[in-house]
Amino acid sequence: MKQLRVGIINVTGYAGMELARLLYHHPGVHLTSVTGRSAVGRRLGEFLPHLAEIELTIKGELEDVELAFSALPHKSSAEAVLPLLERGKRVIDISADFRLKDEKEYQRWYDFVHPVPELLDEAVYGLVELNRPRIPPARLVANPGCYPTGAILALAPVVKEGLIEPDIIIDCKSGVSGAGRTLSMDLHFAEANENVYAYALEGHRHLPEIIQELGGLNPALSPSITFVPHLVPMTRGVLSSCYANLLEGKVESSEKGKKELVELYRDFYRGEPFIRITEVPPQTKQTWGNNLCLIHPTIDIRTGRLIVISCIDNLVKGAAGQAIQSMNLMLGLPEVMGLEGLAVYP
Amino acid sequence: MKQLRVGIINVTGYAGMELARLLYHHPGVHLTSVTGRSAVGRRLGEFLPHLAEIELTIKGELEDVELAFSALPHKSSAEAVLPLLERGKRVIDISADFRLKDEKEYQRWYDFVHPVPELLDEAVYGLVELNRPRIPPARLVANPGCYPTGAILALAPVVKEGLIEPDIIIDCKSGVSGAGRTLSMDLHFAEANENVYAYALEGHRHLPEIIQELGGLNPALSPSITFVPHLVPMTRGVLSSCYANLLEGKVESSEKGKKELVELYRDFYRGEPFIRITEVPPQTKQTWGNNLCLIHPTIDIRTGRLIVISCIDNLVKGAAGQAIQSMNLMLGLPEVMGLEGLAVYP
Amino acid sequence: MKQLRVGIINVTGYAGMELARLLYHHPGVHLTSVTGRSAVGRRLGEFLPHLAEIELTIKGELEDVELAFSALPHKSSAEAVLPLLERGKRVIDISADFRLKDEKEYQRWYDFVHPVPELLDEAVYGLVELNRPRIPPARLVANPGCYPTGAILALAPVVKEGLIEPDIIIDCKSGVSGAGRTLSMDLHFAEANENVYAYALEGHRHLPEIIQELGGLNPALSPSITFVPHLVPMTRGVLSSCYANLLEGKVESSEKGKKELVELYRDFYRGEPFIRITEVPPQTKQTWGNNLCLIHPTIDIRTGRLIVISCIDNLVKGAAGQAIQSMNLMLGLPEVMGLEGLAVYP
Amino acid sequence: MKQLRVGIINVTGYAGMELARLLYHHPGVHLTSVTGRSAVGRRLGEFLPHLAEIELTIKGELEDVELAFSALPHKSSAEAVLPLLERGKRVIDISADFRLKDEKEYQRWYDFVHPVPELLDEAVYGLVELNRPRIPPARLVANPGCYPTGAILALAPVVKEGLIEPDIIIDCKSGVSGAGRTLSMDLHFAEANENVYAYALEGHRHLPEIIQELGGLNPALSPSITFVPHLVPMTRGVLSSCYANLLEGKVESSEKGKKELVELYRDFYRGEPFIRITEVPPQTKQTWGNNLCLIHPTIDIRTGRLIVISCIDNLVKGAAGQAIQSMNLMLGLPEVMGLEGLAVYP
Repeated sequence: MKQLRVGIINVTGYAGMELARLLYHHPGVHLTSVTGRSAVGRRLGEFLPHLAEIELTIKGELEDVELAFSALPHKSSAEAVLPLLERGKRVIDISADFRLKDEKEYQRWYDFVHPVPELLDEAVYGLVELNRPRIPPARLVANPGCYPTGAILALAPVVKEGLIEPDIIIDCKSGVSGAGRTLSMDLHFAEANENVYAYALEGHRHLPEIIQELGGLNPALSPSITFVPHLVPMTRGVLSSCYANLLEGKVESSEKGKKELVELYRDFYRGEPFIRITEVPPQTKQTWGNNLCLIHPTIDIRTGRLIVISCIDNLVKGAAGQAIQSMNLMLGLPEVMGLEGLAVYP
Repeated sequence: MKQLRVGIINVTGYAGMELARLLYHHPGVHLTSVTGRSAVGRRLGEFLPHLAEIELTIKGELEDVELAFSALPHKSSAEAVLPLLERGKRVIDISADFRLKDEKEYQRWYDFVHPVPELLDEAVYGLVELNRPRIPPARLVANPGCYPTGAILALAPVVKEGLIEPDIIIDCKSGVSGAGRTLSMDLHFAEANENVYAYALEGHRHLPEIIQELGGLNPALSPSITFVPHLVPMTRGVLSSCYANLLEGKVESSEKGKKELVELYRDFYRGEPFIRITEVPPQTKQTWGNNLCLIHPTIDIRTGRLIVISCIDNLVKGAAGQAIQSMNLMLGLPEVMGLEGLAVYP
Repeated sequence: MKQLRVGIINVTGYAGMELARLLYHHPGVHLTSVTGRSAVGRRLGEFLPHLAEIELTIKGELEDVELAFSALPHKSSAEAVLPLLERGKRVIDISADFRLKDEKEYQRWYDFVHPVPELLDEAVYGLVELNRPRIPPARLVANPGCYPTGAILALAPVVKEGLIEPDIIIDCKSGVSGAGRTLSMDLHFAEANENVYAYALEGHRHLPEIIQELGGLNPALSPSITFVPHLVPMTRGVLSSCYANLLEGKVESSEKGKKELVELYRDFYRGEPFIRITEVPPQTKQTWGNNLCLIHPTIDIRTGRLIVISCIDNLVKGAAGQAIQSMNLMLGLPEVMGLEGLAVYP
Repeated sequence: MKQLRVGIINVTGYAGMELARLLYHHPGVHLTSVTGRSAVGRRLGEFLPHLAEIELTIKGELEDVELAFSALPHKSSAEAVLPLLERGKRVIDISADFRLKDEKEYQRWYDFVHPVPELLDEAVYGLVELNRPRIPPARLVANPGCYPTGAILALAPVVKEGLIEPDIIIDCKSGVSGAGRTLSMDLHFAEANENVYAYALEGHRHLPEIIQELGGLNPALSPSITFVPHLVPMTRGVLSSCYANLLEGKVESSEKGKKELVELYRDFYRGEPFIRITEVPPQTKQTWGNNLCLIHPTIDIRTGRLIVISCIDNLVKGAAGQAIQSMNLMLGLPEVMGLEGLAVYP
C-alpha cells in the first residue's frame, strides 16, 4: 500500500521533525525526501538522533514526491511553494504564508510583500473540523497556527450559533517549543525555566488568522478580540482560556445552561475524531504527543459569562498532526490514519 | 536591637517556612518560637534542612512572643487567633479567616461557620499599598491571598479612578507551591510537570476577596469579575493577566493613551517600595524570592481594551513577605526592613 | 488478527497505564480487561483521561484473558500470580516478585516471606536481549526493573567478555515517574522540581537483581558493584553511567581501543531491534516514549577506565515496553510489534 | 562603613549578575562599577530587570575601584587582569585563567597560550576552606570552578588523611546555568527540558583543577580520577557523587566505620561557616541561592567503598558567593558577611 511518496521541506525545525516522526509511522504514505539547509548531506539520524530509524539523507532540494509539506519560515515558504505547484505537486504549508486571505495583512503583520498573492484565494485553511469539504480537492492547504487551532476550535460553536457578545478575550499558555528551534535568550533553559510571562501584547501574528476565521463563521458578529499569548516552562502544549459574555436570551446562565452548552458543543463536533468535549477542565498533558483537541465549555454563573478552555499539543494538532489530517483527506486516505496514537502520559 | 520576639504557628507549610527564612534575616525582630503539629519535638533544621541555621525546636504550642504569624489552614487559624489576642498578642493571619468582612461568605466559600465573627470587622486587610494607614495600630491583620495580591494591585488604579467598564477578566497562572504542601495527585511531580490547566472554574475561594477589595475602592463600579486560576509547572510565581474595556472618554486607546496609563500607574504607586511599573511585560522569575510586585499596564489599541499584567512570588509578596511588610508597620520598623533581597535570577 | 485477549492487573499505576497505552496500539492482541482497586467500576477514560479512547471499565477482578500483565506492588503481585497460572494463564509480572532466584533475598531486600518460592526457578528474567531463547515457552516472565535494564544492558558485553576488573560503579539518574504514583513529599512537585539528590545509599532494591544477572553472565568475575540511584526533575528517563577499570591486556586504553570497544558492543548487540550503540553520549530525551536502549561505551584514556552510558525511558524499555517485547515472543508475534514508535522529541 | 568600592567586569553573564545580586546586599562594600560589552550604556536594571534596584550604568571599562571581580570568559579574563594589577587593584578572577599552576595545561585544556604565565604562581586558588591563610594577603585570587568546588570539598578529608585507594570516580550532575548564558542548541529550553545526559567524556576542563588540588593535598596518593559531568533539567545546583575504595586498615567498612567517617568529616571542617556535614543524603535545592556546601560521607558496606555526596548552588558557592567569601578575607571583613542568606526553598 505504501506507494504515495511525500517529502518535507525543512525537516530540521520542530514542525518538520514532528512531521517526520509521524509520517514514519504512517501506513499510507512513504516519506522519501527531506531537506534542511543547515544539515545538507547528513544522515537524518545523525542530525536528529530520535529519527535514526528513518533511513534518509538530508538534501538541499526536495526529490520527486506526490505531496510536499513545507515547514520553512514564513516568506521563504511562499517562495518555495510556487515552483512545487507548477510542477504539479500538492502542498501543505505549515508556515503562515497562505493562511490570510488579504495580502495586505502580510505586510502589516509579517512585514513582507507576499510573493504569490494570486495563490491566497485558492489556498484552503486547513482546519479540518471547519473546512472538511474543501480539503480533499485542494492543491494547496495552509496549515493553521498552533494558537488559532486551539482558540478557533474552542469558540467556533458559540460564534457560529451567535450565542455571545462581540467582546472576546483569548488568553493562551504555550509550551516553549511553540516558539521554534531558533536560539534566543528568552528560550535559553535557565531563563525560560521557572518563569511565566505574556508577550506580543501589541498584537501577535496569529491574531489576524483568528479574526478571519471566527469572523467568517458569523459575519453578523464583528468580534472584538484580544488575544494574549503566554510562555510557560514546558516543552509542548497550548491551553487556550476564552472568555465572552453570553448574549441574553440564548443559553441560560445556570447549571441547566451549562449542560445545554456542553450538549451544544457535543452536537457541533459530533463525529469529529480529534475533538473531545470534556466535563472537567482538560490538561495539556492529556494531549501530549497526540492529535486531540480537548474542549471544556462552561459558564461562570455569577456573571453570565462563557468560559471555554481548550488544549492541544502545539506540535501535533497545532502543526504536524493537523497537517497529516489534511494530507489524509487530500490523498483519499482515512482521516485518522497515522494519528491514532494516545497521549504519552505522564 | 533584636528584642521583639515573634513566632510562627505552623511553620511546616510553605508560608510558614518562608516566614522563617525571611525572619531569620530580619534585623529588627527575633524569631523565638515555632509550632507545627506534624513535627513536634524535632529540631527545625532536621525537619526542614534549609532552615538548619535557625536554632529552634518545633513545639506544639507557641511560646511567649509579642507578635504571632498564624500559617494554619483556614478555620483552624481562626480558632487559634482568639486566645492569642486575648493574651494581648498581635497577630498576622496568613490564612483566609479574617480577610472577608461578611461572615456568611465563609459558609459559602469555605464551608464553615466562622468561630469568631466579631473579629471580622476589626481585622485589617493587609494589602499595605492600599491600606497603609490602618496597619500600624492593628491588633489583627488578615494577610491577603496570593491571587488577590497580584490581581488587586494590577487593577486598583483603574478601578479607583473609574476608567474601566465593569466586565473584568482575571486570568492567573500560578506556580505549584501556591497549592500548598498537602499531598495530592494533581501536585505529584510526574502529573504536574509538563502540564498546564485551569481549575476552580465554578469559582475559586480567592474571588470574594478580590470582589470585596476592588469593590471597596470604587462603590460606583459594581464590577462583574471572572477569575480563573491556572496551575503551571514551576515552583513559585503568580502572573495575573487582567482584561477590561476602557470607558469611553477617559484614557484614549492610542500610543498616547498607553503612555498616560503608565504615568497614571506610576502616580498611583509613587513611593511604593515594592511596586514597580514596567514598560515591557514582566516575568515571574524577575520576582523569584523577593517582595516585589511588577505591574505592566497597557492598551490593546485595536479593541480599546485595557490589559494589565502583574507578577509576584506567591510565597513572598503573595504570603510571607507581605506579612512581614505589615509586621514592620505594626512594630514601627522601616517598612522594607528584612525585605530588600533582590530576586534570585536565573 | 486481533484475537488474543490480554489483561492488566492494576492499570492505575504508571506501569499499568503505560501498558494500556501501548497495548491499545498493538495490532496483535486485544486488551479486554483491566483491574484497579482504587477505581473499580469507573470507565478507564474517566479515571485516566488520556486513555479515553479505550472502551473499558475498571474491574476488581481480571476477566478471561490468555495472558495477563501484573502491575501490582511487590508481594501483592506474587499472591495474584499463582491463581492465574493455576487457571492456565501466562503471566508477565512487572513487579520484582519473580526476578530474584534466591527466596532469601526477598526477606532481605523486600522484607516479606515469598508466598510462592517454588515459582522462582521457573520464572524467566525478561531481559530479552540476554534471555531471548527462554522467553517464548515461558509461563511466567519476571519483567526487569528500570534501573537493572539500563545498567545490565550497558555492562553485559564487557562483563561477559571478561574485559573489566571487578570494581564497578553504577550511577543512575532517573525521572520521577520511576518512583511510582504513590504520593510522597519527595515527589511533591514543589519539592522535586529544581532538585537532584541521591537516595538509597545503603542499598537499593534493584541491586540484587543487577548482581544476579551480571554475575550470571560471567561466574569468574565476582563483581563488586556499587549502585547509587538519583532522582532528577523530569518525568521519564533513566541515564546510567557505569565505571570500571579495564583489565590489562584486553582492550587497549587508546583511541584505537575506543573504536574496538564500540565494535565489540555492536557485535554483541548485532540484530537487536531495540539496542542502538551510539558514537556520541546519548540523551534520555532521545528515547522519550519508545522502547530503545541507547548505549555509548567509551574509555577514559588518561586512566584506562571504561565508561558506559546508557539511556532508556523507564516506563517503556524499563517497564511496559519491555514487557510487551516479552509478550510478543511468548505469543509468537514479531518481537517489535506495537513497539515501533519513535521517540517523541522534543 | 560602605566605603570600599568594588566592581564587576562582565556583569552580563550568570556569574557576573549573581555577583551584583549578592554585592548589592553586602554591608561592607559598595558596588560602584560594572562593565559588559554587549550592553554598554544601558542601565543595569534595563538589561537585567531583577537588578533594577541597583542604580548603575553598564560601562565599557571599569571605573576606579579597590577590588575587581573579573567574570570574563577564559583568555579574555587573563588579558584584563594584568592592567588592573599594575594599577594596584586587587582582583578575584571568576574564570579559569589563574587556577592552574602549570601554564602548559592552558594549551592542553583551553587551547590558548597563557598571556601572563608569570602570574600563575602568585595567584591563590580561592577555595577558602583549604587555602584560608593565603587569601587575606593575596593580590590575585583564582576563584574555583563549580564542579571542582563540590568535588574537592567532598574528597579533601579522605584524600588528605590517606584513607582511600587512588581510583576515584566523580560523577556530577549540574543545573543548566552552569553552562553559562551563551546560547546553544543543547541549552535551548525545549531540548534541555526533560533530558539528562553526560558530556565531555573525553575530559572536562575542570578535571586538571581537581587533579591539581586533590593531588596537592596528599602527594603520596597519585589519584587516578575519572570525572564525568552531566546536565540535568534545572537551573541551579551541582550534586557531586564521589566513589573510591577504602584503604584496608583505615576506616572500617561497617556501621561503626560510617559513624567514624562522619566524625572525621566534622573534625576536618569544624568551624567552617559554609560546610555542613549531613547525616542523610543532601539535596541541591537545600542550597538554592546560598553559599553552603552540604557533604554526606558514607560507606557502601557490602563493597567497602566510600561514597561522598556533596551539593552546592553552582552560581553561589560554585561562583559568586565563594568569590565574595574570598573578598571578605582580602578586605579584612568577617568571612560570612553578605553571605548569610538561607536557601530559598521550595
